[in-house]
Amino acid sequence: MNNQNGLKIVTIGGGSSYTPELIEGFIKRYDSLPIRELWLVDVPEGEEKLNIVGALAKRMVKEAGVPMDVHLTLNRQEALKDADFVTTQFRVGLLDARAKDERIPLKHGVIGQETNGPGGLFKGLRTIPVILDIVKDMERLCPDAWLINFTNPAGMVTEAIYRHSNWKKVVGLCNVPVGMRMGVAKALDVSPERVHVDFAGLNHMVFGMDMYLDGQNVTDTVIEKITSGDSSMTMRNIVDLGWEPEFIKALNMLPCPYHRYYYKTDEMLAQEMKDSEEKGTRAEVVQQLENELFELYKDENLNEKPEQLEKRGGAYYSDAACSLIDSIYNDRGDIQPVNTLNQGAIGSLPDDSAVEINCIITKSGPKPIAIGDLPVAVRGLVQQIKSFERVSAEAAVTGDYHKALLAMTINPLVPSDTLAKTILDEMLEAHKKDLPQFN
Amino acid sequence: MNNQNGLKIVTIGGGSSYTPELIEGFIKRYDSLPIRELWLVDVPEGEEKLNIVGALAKRMVKEAGVPMDVHLTLNRQEALKDADFVTTQFRVGLLDARAKDERIPLKHGVIGQETNGPGGLFKGLRTIPVILDIVKDMERLCPDAWLINFTNPAGMVTEAIYRHSNWKKVVGLCNVPVGMRMGVAKALDVSPERVHVDFAGLNHMVFGMDMYLDGQNVTDTVIEKITSGDSSMTMRNIVDLGWEPEFIKALNMLPCPYHRYYYKTDEMLAQEMKDSEEKGTRAEVVQQLENELFELYKDENLNEKPEQLEKRGGAYYSDAACSLIDSIYNDRGDIQPVNTLNQGAIGSLPDDSAVEINCIITKSGPKPIAIGDLPVAVRGLVQQIKSFERVSAEAAVTGDYHKALLAMTINPLVPSDTLAKTILDEMLEAHKKDLPQFN
Amino acid sequence: MNNQNGLKIVTIGGGSSYTPELIEGFIKRYDSLPIRELWLVDVPEGEEKLNIVGALAKRMVKEAGVPMDVHLTLNRQEALKDADFVTTQFRVGLLDARAKDERIPLKHGVIGQETNGPGGLFKGLRTIPVILDIVKDMERLCPDAWLINFTNPAGMVTEAIYRHSNWKKVVGLCNVPVGMRMGVAKALDVSPERVHVDFAGLNHMVFGMDMYLDGQNVTDTVIEKITSGDSSMTMRNIVDLGWEPEFIKALNMLPCPYHRYYYKTDEMLAQEMKDSEEKGTRAEVVQQLENELFELYKDENLNEKPEQLEKRGGAYYSDAACSLIDSIYNDRGDIQPVNTLNQGAIGSLPDDSAVEINCIITKSGPKPIAIGDLPVAVRGLVQQIKSFERVSAEAAVTGDYHKALLAMTINPLVPSDTLAKTILDEMLEAHKKDLPQFN
Amino acid sequence: MNNQNGLKIVTIGGGSSYTPELIEGFIKRYDSLPIRELWLVDVPEGEEKLNIVGALAKRMVKEAGVPMDVHLTLNRQEALKDADFVTTQFRVGLLDARAKDERIPLKHGVIGQETNGPGGLFKGLRTIPVILDIVKDMERLCPDAWLINFTNPAGMVTEAIYRHSNWKKVVGLCNVPVGMRMGVAKALDVSPERVHVDFAGLNHMVFGMDMYLDGQNVTDTVIEKITSGDSSMTMRNIVDLGWEPEFIKALNMLPCPYHRYYYKTDEMLAQEMKDSEEKGTRAEVVQQLENELFELYKDENLNEKPEQLEKRGGAYYSDAACSLIDSIYNDRGDIQPVNTLNQGAIGSLPDDSAVEINCIITKSGPKPIAIGDLPVAVRGLVQQIKSFERVSAEAAVTGDYHKALLAMTINPLVPSDTLAKTILDEMLEAHKKDLPQFN
Repeated sequence: MNNQNGLKIVTIGGGSSYTPELIEGFIKRYDSLPIRELWLVDVPEGEEKLNIVGALAKRMVKEAGVPMDVHLTLNRQEALKDADFVTTQFRVGLLDARAKDERIPLKHGVIGQETNGPGGLFKGLRTIPVILDIVKDMERLCPDAWLINFTNPAGMVTEAIYRHSNWKKVVGLCNVPVGMRMGVAKALDVSPERVHVDFAGLNHMVFGMDMYLDGQNVTDTVIEKITSGDSSMTMRNIVDLGWEPEFIKALNMLPCPYHRYYYKTDEMLAQEMKDSEEKGTRAEVVQQLENELFELYKDENLNEKPEQLEKRGGAYYSDAACSLIDSIYNDRGDIQPVNTLNQGAIGSLPDDSAVEINCIITKSGPKPIAIGDLPVAVRGLVQQIKSFERVSAEAAVTGDYHKALLAMTINPLVPSDTLAKTILDEMLEAHKKDLPQFN
Repeated sequence: MNNQNGLKIVTIGGGSSYTPELIEGFIKRYDSLPIRELWLVDVPEGEEKLNIVGALAKRMVKEAGVPMDVHLTLNRQEALKDADFVTTQFRVGLLDARAKDERIPLKHGVIGQETNGPGGLFKGLRTIPVILDIVKDMERLCPDAWLINFTNPAGMVTEAIYRHSNWKKVVGLCNVPVGMRMGVAKALDVSPERVHVDFAGLNHMVFGMDMYLDGQNVTDTVIEKITSGDSSMTMRNIVDLGWEPEFIKALNMLPCPYHRYYYKTDEMLAQEMKDSEEKGTRAEVVQQLENELFELYKDENLNEKPEQLEKRGGAYYSDAACSLIDSIYNDRGDIQPVNTLNQGAIGSLPDDSAVEINCIITKSGPKPIAIGDLPVAVRGLVQQIKSFERVSAEAAVTGDYHKALLAMTINPLVPSDTLAKTILDEMLEAHKKDLPQFN
Repeated sequence: MNNQNGLKIVTIGGGSSYTPELIEGFIKRYDSLPIRELWLVDVPEGEEKLNIVGALAKRMVKEAGVPMDVHLTLNRQEALKDADFVTTQFRVGLLDARAKDERIPLKHGVIGQETNGPGGLFKGLRTIPVILDIVKDMERLCPDAWLINFTNPAGMVTEAIYRHSNWKKVVGLCNVPVGMRMGVAKALDVSPERVHVDFAGLNHMVFGMDMYLDGQNVTDTVIEKITSGDSSMTMRNIVDLGWEPEFIKALNMLPCPYHRYYYKTDEMLAQEMKDSEEKGTRAEVVQQLENELFELYKDENLNEKPEQLEKRGGAYYSDAACSLIDSIYNDRGDIQPVNTLNQGAIGSLPDDSAVEINCIITKSGPKPIAIGDLPVAVRGLVQQIKSFERVSAEAAVTGDYHKALLAMTINPLVPSDTLAKTILDEMLEAHKKDLPQFN
Repeated sequence: MNNQNGLKIVTIGGGSSYTPELIEGFIKRYDSLPIRELWLVDVPEGEEKLNIVGALAKRMVKEAGVPMDVHLTLNRQEALKDADFVTTQFRVGLLDARAKDERIPLKHGVIGQETNGPGGLFKGLRTIPVILDIVKDMERLCPDAWLINFTNPAGMVTEAIYRHSNWKKVVGLCNVPVGMRMGVAKALDVSPERVHVDFAGLNHMVFGMDMYLDGQNVTDTVIEKITSGDSSMTMRNIVDLGWEPEFIKALNMLPCPYHRYYYKTDEMLAQEMKDSEEKGTRAEVVQQLENELFELYKDENLNEKPEQLEKRGGAYYSDAACSLIDSIYNDRGDIQPVNTLNQGAIGSLPDDSAVEINCIITKSGPKPIAIGDLPVAVRGLVQQIKSFERVSAEAAVTGDYHKALLAMTINPLVPSDTLAKTILDEMLEAHKKDLPQFN
């Protein structure tokens, strides 16, 4: 670590509404994770939100009585200098862009979602050039730091860093596995600490392969429980559609909530259509929530994370992040599911691709636990999504129209090459200002 | 070879309307491929057709003046004894079953087709137990023979033999690559002999990776020609839907006609819906054609293959089969695209799976030419179909309901687990008599 | 576990002189590892030693005051019934056989050693049929038990179980990694608990890839220290030959002591020659030590492990075994280097081969941590030894003379096919009574 | 091709004594391979030999009456401009360097040979930087040309081009497979055209896996014949040592003559020792032969290849080269064993490494025929040699002392790290002038 007297952590996209969760997490762990400097960085368009959330962060720290300096800045380079950890949670184009990612495909009868399908492709196209820029800064300013990326689509972004930069110290993080583990605990009616799940797959395409209670394999019991009706494995920001119980029995694993986009495409599309008409797309709902949250954050008497934040959907994110940073810093050797380089851990995915898998977390970073391979039945879809991620990352880096069209067409949620072109052209136009590489 | 005085060839499903093509092919090649005995085998339900087509075969042979004995039998074991080559072109459940494979999914808004989607699964479920039975007979009765399988879904059937029997001397054959090569020749306006195509993929999921004219790589020229409008790469039994030119440019390879089920799902479904209403499903159209053909075949003055057979859709099949048998028998060492064991030839598919790929054809069978790997963009879909084929084959062998449901749900043409179950249950009931393993 | 009231552990080869170490280990861990029954099993030839060491074991347990029942038996089946853990440490043909493994090759100018070269092959040929028999008993008598195998050559034996039986619950155990870690701690002058080593390779062919102190990568420091002279990484039962420092720097990893048979063949051979003349081969030295130990063990006043046992060479063995059993039983999730199924953890070794690698130890057994691949420079030798192990295991199972000759000739310590045949023939004759499969 | 009016071929190391063979080959094939310009290139030290052999070449062409212009030059760039094929057969340091490669290891009791062991390493260290320079020239001057490399160690050199340049149009060529095929034909007493051998492995480490007569697999017959005594599979420049028949039976494949360095190390070393004392090392014998040959070449009346050249040892080289060039130029699609990119053709070798394997030869170059994998028994040695080649190539490119030491020590013919260092240091000094990268 660079700083003898404590850690320097930089959060890019610091003006996010999630930031209070992160602050709370850091405060709680202060004893084992002595952060001296926390830099919240944002872009000029986000300055107002940065100031609001930054002020709350300072009040929270002060209230907690920990000697952590919170800095707010629009100057990324200044912030990165000698950082120990950099977390990224930014959103290029803000929620407006997300709304387009949702609305445009939907208009053409295709699922519009932030991390899957056309929306996932476009979020990647906007995000990847920025993250590669950050990584270039890091090479120069904080070459020993770890990059902890939350920015979606986290799998594609992590893949892009591995393949299109020289930076290896990156971990992609997602709250989906934590939620699944919580769900298993709930299904078993036990505390989550007693539950272990063998996670493997890709980001938003991860499976709980085997499940354990106090080390005993209870996969059959869990499958039985969740197919017999009452328990729901869903996450707040995914509509609650029930799985076909016989399919889950046939799978004999726990799919993640996002798998429903692929195994329940029709139902998910119908629900999205309905929701978008009745209450707006997810981006529009979130925008409303965010407005309310920022109103709350402005309250100078508020010096803790407000309860309402939980509705926002990113539950466990900060917990996952703080746990990861803590385990790296303290060389804990515990097991956490993260996005890291495959290195053979999942047989039928490339060794040099990003995968989401259980890892031992050490001071040298995550080391994946080899699972051999995913069951034959799910292998193909996972490989297809990895193909999509790789072609998307190439399109993002090169700004090549044909690569973008290829990515769009091979995505399993897009049912036609002609439609793919229509949606691509419309979205390229709509996101023009955030896609300089395509101009 | 077993027979010093010429070859013994057995055709299972000999009562097929295709048989005259095969006979014609054997007659044409008699000099290099001296067949003394040709056994046409069929099941009791097919006896009438066997007798009609068998009589025509005998007239054709007589007219040609070649000393080839044509035998008709319902006794498979008798036929197989000491055979040199066994070709299989049977259809369990006849065209009635195919009509159900097409109608039932379509009723639920899902593509109904003989080799893809729910139809492909069910054709596999009906066919695989029978082919494994044949293979068991062959182990005992003609252990040195080659099995040349035309029966669809040829990829799944070949996979099933590799994985669920000890028989290795099997080649899966399809006319799609021949048709694609013809298409390239037509696009270039040259004779097909001057054209070479690097084929790789799976059955009905094969790509023309690079294309050559007199050995010179002309891929760019061909792509340019086929995307500039007039040329069509389609096969007769697939509706003529135009590809999105920009997608083909992005792909920079030649997809096969069946790829449209995946890359143009919406259009293919709409067309199928329309056709099924206006002129019946493909099985129904074919049934009509077959009836007409068999009327023709009955004509005792007919002693050659009637022209009308070409409309049937299996163009080049017999040519592909005769060429393959000829090249094996004569150790020709020429290149033919067939379904064989991968053995590393395509990087991201299992070594021990069936693939459709260019092979050197020798007396020891086909030896695949390694291509390294398919482009990243198409790899995932191919892997997904291979997953589907493997799970389907397991379902066929075990009669396990959950495996069948798994196969149905993971098929990319089936958009929902719930719908998958509905279709599965309905089709299991409809095909009950041909699926003893599920009872 | 089968036994609600505590564990049943079976030690096959219970009459070994090592047994008191194991007993001591179990006693120390009694609180977390409540063993109710410990069954020491041996063959009729070992009965006397079994009785001696068994009596000592009982005295040790009594002195410790733990409620562990020690049973002595020649009836393996009786012992295995409902066991929770089975440890194997037997030696087919006893030390006499080992002496032949050492003397015969040496006579022909080839290294004679228990686990490498011709000696390793023959120990495998004698041991593998016995272990496969034990495994068959276990399938029937204690299907839920774990087999913890210490019997050398542990890598080849574990490989044989994976490839030639249906038993998967086996872990191969070796004290070499523990010794290497101790050596690193000594080189750094710190306590071993603070040291972590990334172990990967095969049994007796394992590398310490990266080394850590309190989680910090100190590989360079360790390499510097051990090449600058004074520290020795050797184990007691391998002669202390210094590595060429520049080679270790070039390697930039820690080889294991047994690597010297391959990278210092000349020196090892010369030393063996000298030792065998001056003080006898290792088996002969060990025989003498064992005689002395059993004299001590007979002393009815002895009720603890005598100090002299440490000279025997198997330091840390019992510790490794007890730690492993404890971690499985208690689902500890700690990291231990063991021999387990590769499953992709080491890239250039087969997924379905045994490797020696760091694993997370859970109630479901060891889960290997993927390392990607070994450095190119060492990969080839490791692959060659794996080839040797696999061919040897096949020879052991089939009793095929040609497979045995193949194994002997491809071993890198055997410098000629002709010499291989000479040594093979002589050793087959010498070990005749213990190799029924070759008769 | 660049030249409408015929081909331009460049031979680097044109002053070699082999050149008349190549000229003869080109003359014989003139009809199908219309070479208009043949450029013989050499370095200043080789000018005299270039002039002698060049004059002979011109006389041979004149005598044959073919319109082929032979150019002699020391200006490589001038020669390479717009070439269609470039063949390389140069020897950095001439035979003097080879003599050192042989003498120095031998002095230390280690095999001294041009392509294996320390000699192979040093020939690689001297050659690779030069070939990479040639390739850089080709990128600029004749980007469409094929590089046909004969320069030994051909496997390592081809590997180095694949891994350390961007040039992909390279084929490594060796006469060993041709000789093996001839040997099989001789053993069967048939003409070589009727024999086919499935070659796979690495250069000078290639196996004849299956052997065919008129397409029929006759492997067992050949193995039987060559182990029953009289037939010898040896090549002229390898001492004639008989294999152990039982080992060849166990292998059930045809090893290449160079395999004896590994499977008969003791005998080969003893023979080398004896020969070097009695008649000089191979380089010294060859030097004498070359002197005699060049005396012959000077004879202005000589206008054909003199018979004495056959003793030189490179039989079939020119034939292999001319056949290869002819098949590429004419897109023949025949099968030839060459060194090319693996691309999965041999399972347990890296996809991106050079292997020696049967390929279809087309205008687009060689396409390897997938064999699945080498038998387990030989896999390890082949992998070890590939490791050695890769580390050697890295040492050659970087001039890194430790990498060179690593390569030397891991070579299976070098029995000790200490000895490796001794030999390395002595050879680095001896070859100093030809190893600028190490200075």
